[in-house]
Amino acid sequence: MQQAKDVRIAYIGGGSRGWAWGLMTDIALDPVLAGEVRLYDIDRDAAEKNKKIGDMISNHPKAVSHWKYTVADSLQTALTGADFVIISILPATFDEMESDVHAPEAVGVYQSVGDTVGPGGFMRALRTIPMFEEIALAIRAYAPHAWVINYTNPMSLCVATLYRVFPEIRAFGCCHEVFGTQKLLSAMLEDMEGIPDIPRQDIRVTVQGINHFTWFSKASYQGQDLFPVYRAFCEKYAATGFLKGQDDNWMNNYFACSHRVKMDLFLKYGKIAAAGDRHLAEFMPPWYLRDPETARSWGFTLTPVSWRKQDLQNRLARRARLLSGQEEPDFKGSGEEGHLMLGALLGLGDMTTNVNIPNRGQIPNLPLGAIVETNALFRAGEIAPVYAGPMDGNIQALTARHVLNQQNTLQAALTCDRTLALTTFMNDPLMSRVDWADGEALFDRMVAAQLAYLPKGWR
Amino acid sequence: MQQAKDVRIAYIGGGSRGWAWGLMTDIALDPVLAGEVRLYDIDRDAAEKNKKIGDMISNHPKAVSHWKYTVADSLQTALTGADFVIISILPATFDEMESDVHAPEAVGVYQSVGDTVGPGGFMRALRTIPMFEEIALAIRAYAPHAWVINYTNPMSLCVATLYRVFPEIRAFGCCHEVFGTQKLLSAMLEDMEGIPDIPRQDIRVTVQGINHFTWFSKASYQGQDLFPVYRAFCEKYAATGFLKGQDDNWMNNYFACSHRVKMDLFLKYGKIAAAGDRHLAEFMPPWYLRDPETARSWGFTLTPVSWRKQDLQNRLARRARLLSGQEEPDFKGSGEEGHLMLGALLGLGDMTTNVNIPNRGQIPNLPLGAIVETNALFRAGEIAPVYAGPMDGNIQALTARHVLNQQNTLQAALTCDRTLALTTFMNDPLMSRVDWADGEALFDRMVAAQLAYLPKGWR
Amino acid sequence: MQQAKDVRIAYIGGGSRGWAWGLMTDIALDPVLAGEVRLYDIDRDAAEKNKKIGDMISNHPKAVSHWKYTVADSLQTALTGADFVIISILPATFDEMESDVHAPEAVGVYQSVGDTVGPGGFMRALRTIPMFEEIALAIRAYAPHAWVINYTNPMSLCVATLYRVFPEIRAFGCCHEVFGTQKLLSAMLEDMEGIPDIPRQDIRVTVQGINHFTWFSKASYQGQDLFPVYRAFCEKYAATGFLKGQDDNWMNNYFACSHRVKMDLFLKYGKIAAAGDRHLAEFMPPWYLRDPETARSWGFTLTPVSWRKQDLQNRLARRARLLSGQEEPDFKGSGEEGHLMLGALLGLGDMTTNVNIPNRGQIPNLPLGAIVETNALFRAGEIAPVYAGPMDGNIQALTARHVLNQQNTLQAALTCDRTLALTTFMNDPLMSRVDWADGEALFDRMVAAQLAYLPKGWR
Amino acid sequence: MQQAKDVRIAYIGGGSRGWAWGLMTDIALDPVLAGEVRLYDIDRDAAEKNKKIGDMISNHPKAVSHWKYTVADSLQTALTGADFVIISILPATFDEMESDVHAPEAVGVYQSVGDTVGPGGFMRALRTIPMFEEIALAIRAYAPHAWVINYTNPMSLCVATLYRVFPEIRAFGCCHEVFGTQKLLSAMLEDMEGIPDIPRQDIRVTVQGINHFTWFSKASYQGQDLFPVYRAFCEKYAATGFLKGQDDNWMNNYFACSHRVKMDLFLKYGKIAAAGDRHLAEFMPPWYLRDPETARSWGFTLTPVSWRKQDLQNRLARRARLLSGQEEPDFKGSGEEGHLMLGALLGLGDMTTNVNIPNRGQIPNLPLGAIVETNALFRAGEIAPVYAGPMDGNIQALTARHVLNQQNTLQAALTCDRTLALTTFMNDPLMSRVDWADGEALFDRMVAAQLAYLPKGWR
Repeated sequence: MQQAKDVRIAYIGGGSRGWAWGLMTDIALDPVLAGEVRLYDIDRDAAEKNKKIGDMISNHPKAVSHWKYTVADSLQTALTGADFVIISILPATFDEMESDVHAPEAVGVYQSVGDTVGPGGFMRALRTIPMFEEIALAIRAYAPHAWVINYTNPMSLCVATLYRVFPEIRAFGCCHEVFGTQKLLSAMLEDMEGIPDIPRQDIRVTVQGINHFTWFSKASYQGQDLFPVYRAFCEKYAATGFLKGQDDNWMNNYFACSHRVKMDLFLKYGKIAAAGDRHLAEFMPPWYLRDPETARSWGFTLTPVSWRKQDLQNRLARRARLLSGQEEPDFKGSGEEGHLMLGALLGLGDMTTNVNIPNRGQIPNLPLGAIVETNALFRAGEIAPVYAGPMDGNIQALTARHVLNQQNTLQAALTCDRTLALTTFMNDPLMSRVDWADGEALFDRMVAAQLAYLPKGWR
Repeated sequence: MQQAKDVRIAYIGGGSRGWAWGLMTDIALDPVLAGEVRLYDIDRDAAEKNKKIGDMISNHPKAVSHWKYTVADSLQTALTGADFVIISILPATFDEMESDVHAPEAVGVYQSVGDTVGPGGFMRALRTIPMFEEIALAIRAYAPHAWVINYTNPMSLCVATLYRVFPEIRAFGCCHEVFGTQKLLSAMLEDMEGIPDIPRQDIRVTVQGINHFTWFSKASYQGQDLFPVYRAFCEKYAATGFLKGQDDNWMNNYFACSHRVKMDLFLKYGKIAAAGDRHLAEFMPPWYLRDPETARSWGFTLTPVSWRKQDLQNRLARRARLLSGQEEPDFKGSGEEGHLMLGALLGLGDMTTNVNIPNRGQIPNLPLGAIVETNALFRAGEIAPVYAGPMDGNIQALTARHVLNQQNTLQAALTCDRTLALTTFMNDPLMSRVDWADGEALFDRMVAAQLAYLPKGWR
Repeated sequence: MQQAKDVRIAYIGGGSRGWAWGLMTDIALDPVLAGEVRLYDIDRDAAEKNKKIGDMISNHPKAVSHWKYTVADSLQTALTGADFVIISILPATFDEMESDVHAPEAVGVYQSVGDTVGPGGFMRALRTIPMFEEIALAIRAYAPHAWVINYTNPMSLCVATLYRVFPEIRAFGCCHEVFGTQKLLSAMLEDMEGIPDIPRQDIRVTVQGINHFTWFSKASYQGQDLFPVYRAFCEKYAATGFLKGQDDNWMNNYFACSHRVKMDLFLKYGKIAAAGDRHLAEFMPPWYLRDPETARSWGFTLTPVSWRKQDLQNRLARRARLLSGQEEPDFKGSGEEGHLMLGALLGLGDMTTNVNIPNRGQIPNLPLGAIVETNALFRAGEIAPVYAGPMDGNIQALTARHVLNQQNTLQAALTCDRTLALTTFMNDPLMSRVDWADGEALFDRMVAAQLAYLPKGWR
Repeated sequence: MQQAKDVRIAYIGGGSRGWAWGLMTDIALDPVLAGEVRLYDIDRDAAEKNKKIGDMISNHPKAVSHWKYTVADSLQTALTGADFVIISILPATFDEMESDVHAPEAVGVYQSVGDTVGPGGFMRALRTIPMFEEIALAIRAYAPHAWVINYTNPMSLCVATLYRVFPEIRAFGCCHEVFGTQKLLSAMLEDMEGIPDIPRQDIRVTVQGINHFTWFSKASYQGQDLFPVYRAFCEKYAATGFLKGQDDNWMNNYFACSHRVKMDLFLKYGKIAAAGDRHLAEFMPPWYLRDPETARSWGFTLTPVSWRKQDLQNRLARRARLLSGQEEPDFKGSGEEGHLMLGALLGLGDMTTNVNIPNRGQIPNLPLGAIVETNALFRAGEIAPVYAGPMDGNIQALTARHVLNQQNTLQAALTCDRTLALTTFMNDPLMSRVDWADGEALFDRMVAAQLAYLPKGWR
């Protein structure tokens, strides 16, 4: 067995309550990797606490691989010499997210997540892009050859900022939403054809789109085209929802989702939407998000930020229990693929999976350079996008609209251009029922609500 | 003076009550061109009547150039040997247009024109595209080297159909909307700077966009950048409208337009929208077309099809007067540039003006092959697009959305693909406040209302 | 183990003496595939004989998988219902190839192979393209959804013809030249680092280029970058050649090759040329092919067509021995990957390998649509090119020149355009020391030598 | 008449003996322009002398427009506030040019000009690119919005360097070679059709290509296609040459040229090559430049640098006569269009002419960003390329080869990359009969001959 035993990982947002612990156990369970993790966080105390948790996990009897955890004083310290950089930060606090998600309700705009698109996603991007600008500059200065893995939302715009600021960066964005739809197809095969327990990786999919608005243009199992099965499945369950085969990971769902949005999109557009319904609904006109009742009628619920605040308290309590030894680390593995990608990039075995990287032509009818989500081949020293082909008809049209909004958001955020920002904010599908004057007033309120996190150009 | 004395023009829609007469006088007044005009119309009687009017115009003492008018029995007869083909048809009748314009009012969608975009423009395209498919096939068979000038709406889709069916066609689409905005800039210079009577051609403009949704990225007069003046002008008049310098041509306006939409778009987006407000409003979300009162508050009015029906009666009455000699032909010239373009293409003098042709890169951030409106150089034997550059920020985003809708409309119309047609219909900005179920029902009603004009695939 | 047991293969050129037998044993040894092979050949007798050999192989005790062999009377019979089409033909006879290879010697142009580029490759293309035009039309008519595997040279132009005539074809071209260079790198690692017996597949390579002029922009073994080792290796052996690790397959080498050309190209250009030296030399200016002595000084020899004629006699004799039972079929496996690709396309396991397909952007600085050789992902129902990135500096320049020559050759062959054909013939690097008049006379002689195989337009 | 009376021109290379004087009289004769010319030259004395000549021209009774001449101490002084920048420098001295032109004769490579392509053009580029890098940086710093007109060779690479270093620069390159071919077509119409004295501007041409290797894909006079006439003309004169209608401007011809190369290229390739034969021959394989006798047999002569040195003495003597009043300035006008372009860019009248600017798609089958020569529309504040369409067959192939060589030359010169430089040097068509070892030795000798003018990276 090939191994890499002195891997150096810089973890930006290393004080994270959740993601970090999942990674710590994933790498502790991976027999081919070992090395050092440098935790960097603007909340240094959180990083210190996570160092202790990291040490506990690494020293735990269930760990098969041992890692050294350190706390870095600065980005420079964390990055210098790093082979990999992981970015998983919370841009500002849940107070700002409260504005993102709930302020638009005043003009009748409801969001199920509010961290990707819609007025909430836009505003989150406006404050996150300058943070990623700073991170990109630090990577250019201190770790220009490192592989950079982003988990932060808004995914596409975080990765886009890294490439805009430092075009030679080797960055990519990872997200598990696609896995959930692979699992749904696996559950479908059990339900429709009686084939149980197919691992999601055995569902072969051609992924096209942008993060949280990904589609399968092809899906097969052992050479069998799954589209006809999926059509029958949607005709059977679109009206009622399908509740089996749920991914009940806390990161993914506030309450259970019934896949009604996804199935409805298939019946309307003919391709398989491949993200959680809560995400998908936000990319469409407000057909599924007219109001909270509409959302519920489609089998999903809006995630209030109050729940996130409470959930954070729960995780902080869990952290205390972990530190005090009252609770054992969870060694079941997060299901994330990050550590496998590390191995592949180190030459320990090829891997093909979906990832967010610049469009080099893998989706020929989206703009070159836009951050798209498709399959890519991970190999020693390279991530090579796999050609996914052109997107179809109106799926392409819907996606292109968001891609252009993202490009304009990035430009507006980097240059503090209010005209571009406001017209982009108004071009979001969720805003399409809002009149200009209401929209402009909302824009100004939401900017004001996060002004402390914005560059001087906004003041 | 160079001249071309045996020009053969095939006029498809040669029974037209209006456009045809304007062209007849324009070419009668043009001293460098003469030849033959073959009138073809599915209403042969109308073509016969126009032949008589054409003869009267050609023999009138005010005519400086003499043309022979004939009536063609078939497309083949009209086209064989033609140097130029003019297409100016009414797709179906005003009854179908009544459905286009007014049926969507049932779901709260109001349209000021209803022949280009919106649900009305979409439905008009659905029946017009098969007609242009037939025309393109006839041109390929009988006049493959002729220059083809289209005046029919929806302009972009008519020209797109010609190129899709016969890629080597030498077709282009002409529209006077841009001229109106040049005239507005001329009137502005009189109002703001006291310079009177500037011919519109002396206002140099860089045109970008698609027909009826054209923009000026640059405008100058004698080297002076007009953008600062236009900003001051908009700040002065955006609230009240500007009523001077109107183009009151019947083809353009139902009632006067006050340019408030155009000025508002400048203040919002920063570029000069260059079409009539009635057209511009239809390309945007329903900010200006929420209801008839909203339109009026923005200084323009919706054109009811009942008015068009009455107007047709007036034009038929005028035809009778012309034929009986009660009324003299109008020799002031239409202001259209068609005849000048003919001359330029025959080598009688270069000309640079705006025109609708496939994107060969003149707008690099719109898809290649899409029918765009930019300046082009007309010379002997060629129309060479002039590079207009990328469109800006959200103007590009708004335009790209319509371009993709047009591509999907064309594909859906040629293949009778209901899924593609319906999802495209729903992707129009004017439909963005309509829920899916209402939209789908409207779609079906509107298809039914024009079923007689649609291919079998829709039945 | 997943299996596909009713695979239908149409084999065009099914009377082949060599390739066919290799395939027959490969598929007999592949436990996951079985079905029917329909042999079609214009030499029906040869197909009949191969049917017998096929049956003998399939019924042989060493066979693990059993296939039914039939002889097809027509392309229609062979193709109808086929899942896969294999094309492996000899365009015309070795008499025409004698002209290809040896006629140019009269003007001082020497060719080591003469079937890909150079004046010989050009002339071979001129007669082969119309044959592939006919094949493409038959596939469009009778097996439009089949996967089509080409082995015929000139590879790039054969595949290009298939796509030009039938753009929706699912064709790809396979060639083992890249494997030879992987084996060389394996031998290098033994020589330089003492690591023995690395399977060629474990040498990970990023392949870029066109068939027979392929390059590795990256090469690694277990994550180790092989470029520094290769540089040291070239510095050690470039002057003397390297004779270990030879691939002595008859299809590949006339006499042994010493890799001096390949190593010289690395020292000159900095990337790893990845085909046999005999092929590589033909793509360059006549640095390595000034005359037979020059070739020998570089460690390779020109393959005379007399040798091919003799070799054919040997293979015919072997066929007789096989048919009479005097000789046993060879069950060691050809080393070709064709049967593995079949399995992958049927969903029996993903596979990433190099293949000749249209450029969809996998090499962004070669023209879209050109037939390029890069890695691709073979999966159920799709071959998805893997992004290889732009080619470097003058490697791109050299390659682009051949790509343009190929595009012009294709166009000239399809339209019988002598001007385009002759100027393309003269643009080949091997012709760069020939004056126009000599070149034109040679062109005419070579056309005359194969006139029986050319379309009427050439007569 | 509109006028611009305070135009500020910075003239880099303002000590020029020839070009500068032509410009001075052109602008003195242009009634619509006046202002200031700042002469900057590394030979300050030459600039001082030209100031005096400029003053004499401006104050001459024949001058209709008056200009102030100053000598600038630095690029900064010259550039600050400039509306236009003219660059016309001699890179190094005629001693270096002697190496460019004559050193390659040792390996059998003869050049008629030696300043654009071939080994001489390559070496000239190697020392000129760093000079233009410095100029571009100064323009970025001191005159970022100025229009920059380059006259220096190698034209394409000088303009390419400006755009590479400062992508927002508003630079373009002017060359009169196309005019000469328009004049030839005018002379042809007199010879073949008896139409005398057609001004060259009335010959409408569609220009495609790169500087000194430009082609007409279309040519017409008053709507008449000139290709059939030109074919007859070539058939009549290709063997003997055509000596009427010569442009005997010293800048253009060493001895008269007979257009045999140009006519031969038409007969071989089917398009009209549109530059002097001395230039055209250098872009081709050495068909026309095998040796001096071959050149003479094609009706042109190689320009020895000794002649240039003598010619410089003549021009210095003329300068002395001008300064002393012994000779009057020549007021016939240079025939260059530079001053007209200035007027057009200032809004004094539109103009369409050929120019060297980055490819924005005007030639869709050459790389975007490459410096190409096509028509462009000059208007107030913009130069908009006019779509020229794809280049044909092998003309495109020949041109693309040089475009790639230029891109590689630029990259090699900016990075001092010997591998890239040497392989590019060897890829020039004129080098195609030279073996590698001879070529490499020549490369090293030529680099050594101009080492004083190269960046440190070459030492």
